[in-house]
This record gives sequence, structure tokens and C-alpha cells, in this order.
Amino acid sequence: MSTLGLIEYQEAAPPVRAIYDDIMATRKTDYINNFWKAIAHDPVLLKRTWESLKQIMGPGALDPLTKELIYIAVSVTNNCNYCIASHTASAFGKGMTEAMFKELQAVIGMANETNKLVTGYQVAVDQRFQPPLQR
Amino acid sequence: MSTLGLIEYQEAAPPVRAIYDDIMATRKTDYINNFWKAIAHDPVLLKRTWESLKQIMGPGALDPLTKELIYIAVSVTNNCNYCIASHTASAFGKGMTEAMFKELQAVIGMANETNKLVTGYQVAVDQRFQPPLQR
Amino acid sequence: MSTLGLIEYQEAAPPVRAIYDDIMATRKTDYINNFWKAIAHDPVLLKRTWESLKQIMGPGALDPLTKELIYIAVSVTNNCNYCIASHTASAFGKGMTEAMFKELQAVIGMANETNKLVTGYQVAVDQRFQPPLQR
Amino acid sequence: MSTLGLIEYQEAAPPVRAIYDDIMATRKTDYINNFWKAIAHDPVLLKRTWESLKQIMGPGALDPLTKELIYIAVSVTNNCNYCIASHTASAFGKGMTEAMFKELQAVIGMANETNKLVTGYQVAVDQRFQPPLQR
Amino acid sequence: MSTLGLIEYQEAAPPVRAIYDDIMATRKTDYINNFWKAIAHDPVLLKRTWESLKQIMGPGALDPLTKELIYIAVSVTNNCNYCIASHTASAFGKGMTEAMFKELQAVIGMANETNKLVTGYQVAVDQRFQPPLQR
Amino acid sequence: MSTLGLIEYQEAAPPVRAIYDDIMATRKTDYINNFWKAIAHDPVLLKRTWESLKQIMGPGALDPLTKELIYIAVSVTNNCNYCIASHTASAFGKGMTEAMFKELQAVIGMANETNKLVTGYQVAVDQRFQPPLQR
Repeated sequence: MSTLGLIEYQEAAPPVRAIYDDIMATRKTDYINNFWKAIAHDPVLLKRTWESLKQIMGPGALDPLTKELIYIAVSVTNNCNYCIASHTASAFGKGMTEAMFKELQAVIGMANETNKLVTGYQVAVDQRFQPPLQR
Repeated sequence: MSTLGLIEYQEAAPPVRAIYDDIMATRKTDYINNFWKAIAHDPVLLKRTWESLKQIMGPGALDPLTKELIYIAVSVTNNCNYCIASHTASAFGKGMTEAMFKELQAVIGMANETNKLVTGYQVAVDQRFQPPLQR
Repeated sequence: MSTLGLIEYQEAAPPVRAIYDDIMATRKTDYINNFWKAIAHDPVLLKRTWESLKQIMGPGALDPLTKELIYIAVSVTNNCNYCIASHTASAFGKGMTEAMFKELQAVIGMANETNKLVTGYQVAVDQRFQPPLQR
Repeated sequence: MSTLGLIEYQEAAPPVRAIYDDIMATRKTDYINNFWKAIAHDPVLLKRTWESLKQIMGPGALDPLTKELIYIAVSVTNNCNYCIASHTASAFGKGMTEAMFKELQAVIGMANETNKLVTGYQVAVDQRFQPPLQR
Repeated sequence: MSTLGLIEYQEAAPPVRAIYDDIMATRKTDYINNFWKAIAHDPVLLKRTWESLKQIMGPGALDPLTKELIYIAVSVTNNCNYCIASHTASAFGKGMTEAMFKELQAVIGMANETNKLVTGYQVAVDQRFQPPLQR
Repeated sequence: MSTLGLIEYQEAAPPVRAIYDDIMATRKTDYINNFWKAIAHDPVLLKRTWESLKQIMGPGALDPLTKELIYIAVSVTNNCNYCIASHTASAFGKGMTEAMFKELQAVIGMANETNKLVTGYQVAVDQRFQPPLQR
């Protein structure tokens, strides 16, 4: 369910259906998840979001699984339940092991803790860490 | 600088100095960054935080660089300037390339965007993504 | 439901009932939503919150619908499900069209993305943007 | 300043310069702000972000000034100093009056307060507000 | 400094000056901090915010120092530097000891960590914790 | 429920069971809540988290109830539903009265509002509040 309802494949207009087709082909699946069906009410947003995501999440200097881990880290920190559920599933689908899942959560938890210790103690940035980065 | 000031090595009590020594030995550096000097006013916190961090950030199912990327993702999402500055420096020190840095930022940005689209459209979690994870 | 339960009109003490009456009169409705029934356990908070909200959300330099859009933008960014659901309904009630809803979500998503790109790249504020604003 | 430094117009490669030119032409200005110069290290990101922003922030069902107000609401809620500074300047440039600025801030403050009251009192969403929206 | 500048006592209109007087009398000080001078451009907001704050932060079921600790916990979690600086100073002024400061930061850090572990592991609320609270 | 499922006492391996025993003994209860059963899949995390929590939340310069109030303030600001539900129950169990609960929520709400007013008006930190703290 979603604010404007979900647009199923059969009822989708051709431009939406074309994106759905590309999602399924790219992901080698016949399943379109609710996120896409919800934002399909705005075909321009659907197209821009999918094309950006396809470009960003593909292989590059970082591999696709590492990118999923980063996505989960953001989603947990933002407390986005849908995103956590879907990207956790996606990460397992891309080869995340249980051991990797556990280490991921431990790092996320620790980072959130030290983020707040730094903030609460009002720690100034060390001279050597100030941008631009020395290389 | 920080709320209670920074405790330098020379003025540190032995339990604090022992942690400083372990930080420098573990990281193969003679530099203690401001975070540790700021929380050293609470030696119990200093010890627990350092030992947890050493345990969590070391090699495991995920390599140390991947863990730094996750740390940055959390810190950017939390908008923690100190953490971003120090962990970005640390990640470059552990082998992050500029190409990796750029992909990391693109993923973080995209994840924050789709997190909010999901939330704003009030998208329900797909049946198949609901925990516990099917395996 | 809520932590302390919901206080219905019939069981409400006179000071709470007076606020409920004002809410219904101001909003031209006979419906009191759960938020008010939940915080009615603290009549001082109920009164202060309602009076502040009535003052702030009324017509002024910004029209009430624009204010609802801003409310939604905050609520989505905060990931407050109740607030998103109730203010989205309220905005549609005040004349938000589907086209407006979609543009609103696109702006919210984009703003969250660029907020994080700025933060992750550690961009310094341009001289000309620093407060106080030049006019 | 920024992590990778700022790329000025004169030193920019042609694809980056083309985006800079479009930004200046679209905004009728000869000024490129630091955000663009910082992310120009990633020309793909620069291009995608600028084109998305141009598409989203232009006139539509919502006018450009209203979109700036929404941008500010997100940026304040996210505590993104750069974004607040630049979009506040931008909004004044697009016709925001001081009276509008003040009402905007009051709404943002109030929304953040009631978001947390709802959350802290654990208020369940009213049946009538649950998606999909009744229309 | 602030977006619209700071309004000093000497240049303040009588309604603003009256609030300044009440702040100084209530707090037994001759100092008005920047926050009040910044929002004084909106005298209605100034009055409402001060009166709400005076009502909320005074003695009640919780003592004023405990309320300051809660204020700091919120401010650190929100990463609001101004608020952390001013309320930390305020809490020390109301009797917070260094030992209390340290325990406060440790609790804030820990709460932020476990908040994210709960979220990342997608833990369902135990039946017995679901509202309304059993008493 | 949770991502990896919940580990019940009967099926727990000895190291996990030892932590469960210590939780029950320390809290004088025979109930283990879902959080622990969810993270028990990572016995190292379980042990570290429990031992840290036991150390931090015990009596010290701040009493255990005050610490629970701080925990709730963080959890509400983070919008962590599980944490709010469990720590609200825990705080009532440790002696929080309804009057205290109400004041707590009012402070959290107010702090979130003024945090954003400060941020939106871009208020600079007063000289006298800048760290390190004058004492």
C-alpha cells in the first residue's frame, strides 16, 4: 500500500511499463517491488530514480555488494523500515553472508555511538583532518 | 578543543596513557587524534570505546576499508563533521581511491533520496521482504 | 492507541473538552484525531500546543496550504509516520492536488540527496551566503 | 573548500564547463557556488545532480519559491548548514520576504516539536489517515 | 550572528524589551544570549517560545537540572551545536558535575548505538511493551 | 521477530545463555526481551552490548531513572519505536510517574523545536558558551 496506491504492471501506461521491464531485465527477476509501484504515479520521477539508481549501484570502483552495505548503513541511520527490509534482502541476494550482516550492524551501531560522543564532547576537528585532504 | 579540554600524552594518568599507547601501536602512528584526548576525561569510556572500536573495525568478514566506508556513510547521514573529516582521512589512509570516494558519496546521496521517497509515499513493506529473512 | 491511552470527548474534563471544541470549530469538523486525544492527558501541553498550532498554521505571509507542505517536508525528513499520514490527509483537504503532492515529494527527495552530497564532500559555505544575509 | 578541493571554471574540463555554463545561463548569474565546484570532481554526478535539480525546482504545480521553502524545511530538519545558508539566500533572491521567512521558521519549529510529541506518546495512526488516501 | 542579525537590548522595541527583561529576571542574569536576539525579529515567536520554555523548564515532577540533561540529550542526538554549547553551559550552571556530564554522554552514546542495533536487526516490539502501557 | 529470528533460552548456546542469565539476575526478572534474542546471533555483540549497558545504566553520579529518561529522549529524537516502547516501560518500572512522563515529553518536544529555530535562524554560538567550558 502507499499514499496514491500501487500501479500494477497490467494497468501501467507504456512509459511506466517500459521502466518496469527494464527493472526486471536488469535485476533478472519478474518481481517489481512496492517502491516502484508507488512512485509510478509520477512517471518522470520513476524514470529519473530508476536510471540514477541503475547507474549508481552498478559495478565500478566499488562492487555492488559493498554498495548495498552502504545503502543499509544509511537506511538504518535514517530509520527507514522499508529501505532496511528491502536492501537487507537485496544484500543477502547479492552474496552478503550472515557474518557480514553481523559485522555491518556492529559497525553501524558503533559509528552512531562515537558520532554522538564526538558531538556531545564538542570535539574540534584536528588540523590534519581539515579539508582539503592532504595527499 | 572540546568541552572539558584535551588531555595530552604527557599529562595523562597511567590508565589513559596505556590506551594512548595501544592506539598508537595498533594504528602504527605516533598521533593521537582529538576524539581520544577529549573523552580521556572519562577513562572508563575511553577504554571501553577504544576496545570496542578495535574489535569491530579490525579484519573479519568485512575488510577494514569497507568498514571505513560504512562509518563514513553513517557519519554523513548523521551530519557529524568531525567524524566525516577523520574517517575520510582514515579511509584514504587505508587505500580508498578518489574513484571509490566519489562512488561512496553518490550511493550515500541516492540512499538518502530514496529513503525519503519511500517514506513520503508511505510505501508498505512487500510481503517477501518482511523479517525474518527467507533463506 | 498511545502510551497513556486516548481520552474521548465524553470522558474529557472541561478544560480538555474546551480545547476539543475549539479544534472542531476552527477546523469545521466533528472529528478529533488521535494526537490530541493522546496528549490530552497533559491539559497544559494540549492547550499550549493547540494554541501555538492555531496561531502558526493560520493564514499570514504564507497561505495555510503552503504551511502544510512545509509540515510534510519536515515530517518526511524526520520519518514521522503519524505526522506524514495526518498532514498528507490535511494537505489534500486544503486543496493539494496530486500534481502538487508529487512535486513536493520530488523536492523533499532531492533536498535530502543534495544535503548529504554537500555534507559528504565537506563543502564550505560561500562567502556570499554567510549570515547575516546581504540585502 | 571541500574534501577534494574546488574546481574553478578556468581549470574545468569541457564537460564540467558545459554544466557550469548551463547553471549560469539558467540562473542568470555569473556565479557558480561551491557545491557545484566541489562535486565537479565527479562529472557524472555533477551532470545528473544539476539536471535533476533543474527539472525538479522549475515551475510546475508548485512555484519555484514554494519549492525553495520546502528545501529550507528539509535542510533545517537535517541540520545542513551549507544548505540552509545557500537556500535561504536563494529564497530571498526569489522573492521570500522577511515575514515569509519568519513564518517558515515557526512552522519548521512547530512541526519538529509535534513530530516528537506524536512519537513520544506513541500515537497510532487514525483509521481515516491510513494510506491509500480516500478521495 | 544570525540570518537577520541580532537585536540588542538598546535597539529593541518595547515588546521585545519586555521579554528580554523577563528572561534576565527569571534567570537572574544580565545576559541575553544570541538565540533570543536572533528570533526577536519575530516578536510573536519570541514571546511564545520564551513563555513555553519558562513553563516547561521550571521545577515540577522533574527538577530543572534533569530537564537540562534531557535537553542536552536531544541536542546531541540532533547534532545542534549551538544548543549543545548553550545547554551544557546552562547545566553546569545549574549544578551538573563533571561526573554527571560524563555519565550523560555515555548514556547518550549508548542509546544511539542500541537504537541502531534494534533498527538494523528489525526487532519487533515485545507484546508486553506495546502501548497502552500496562499499569 | 527480527531479521535473523529470535534465539530463545532453550535453544541458546552456553555463552548466550550465560548472558541471558546475567540479564535476568541483574534485572530481577525471568523475561528476556526481543532485543537480546535478536542480537544473540552475534554472541560477541550480545556480550559487549550487555556489559556496556550494565556498566552505563547502573547507579553513579546519575540515578538509574534519570538515565532511563535520557534514553527515552534519545530514542524519541531518533524515532526508534522499539526503543521508545521498551524504555518507556522500563522507566515506569523504575518509578517514573505519569507526571514525570508528561514533563519529559514536553521537554523533548520543546528541545526539538528550539533546536530547529536555532538552526534555521543560523545563530552563532555566543563567545561565552564556546568550549572549553569556563569554570
